[in-house]
Amino acid sequence: MMAEKGQVTLTICTTCRRGEMSDPEAKRPGTEMYEALQAFDLPDNIRLRPVECLSACTRGCSMALTGGPARWSYVYGDMDPAQHAEDIIAGVTAYSNTDNGLVPWRERPVVFRKQSIARIPPAEMPTEE
Amino acid sequence: MMAEKGQVTLTICTTCRRGEMSDPEAKRPGTEMYEALQAFDLPDNIRLRPVECLSACTRGCSMALTGGPARWSYVYGDMDPAQHAEDIIAGVTAYSNTDNGLVPWRERPVVFRKQSIARIPPAEMPTEE
Repeated sequence: MMAEKGQVTLTICTTCRRGEMSDPEAKRPGTEMYEALQAFDLPDNIRLRPVECLSACTRGCSMALTGGPARWSYVYGDMDPAQHAEDIIAGVTAYSNTDNGLVPWRERPVVFRKQSIARIPPAEMPTEE
Repeated sequence: MMAEKGQVTLTICTTCRRGEMSDPEAKRPGTEMYEALQAFDLPDNIRLRPVECLSACTRGCSMALTGGPARWSYVYGDMDPAQHAEDIIAGVTAYSNTDNGLVPWRERPVVFRKQSIARIPPAEMPTEE
């Protein structure tokens, strides 16, 4: 059933910082976020993908949620690997269960409602003209 | 030649404001931006697409640049329809001439270098693992 809706990718910036880092050699919060998300058992149609820099450096930890040409894409920021991993997985799972990426507002986790940086309409959406 | 690289879409938020608007009934700066860009003569492989809200409301005028599963996507903000239309068209044209969306840094217009909100890697990019 779910596979029919197509692959979903959560792209996590592994170089993201969160505020000041006193030790420049320490593990980046973005890498901690990626590792925290990897601990979850995800269905085959959800892929976690690490990337170095999403150019959202003032809003780390940041991540992008995409799901093919028929779904809206989202960029989220200000995420905390110690607090938000479970909510992120819930939000990604809800997104993967849609055809167009539009999860009803009340069904989105609060971190997705409040920490969205931008959204991009699907490539296949007709113009509004 | 260019058509082989695939369609490029510039999605412009038509509901964007820029700072305070004294007249709530006035035309939105986002709509002015869309109209300013429509005045340019664009090749067939570049599409302008209006959309209501890219959820980047604090960074208006905002827009998203996408080009299929092989290209990076970008979200830009803080654009001024009276100042930036020509630079935006130059940046979109350079992007349309790439296979992967990565225009060399010095060839990007300054508004693209300085006013990027986020970028998303192409769906087809292999993971970095």
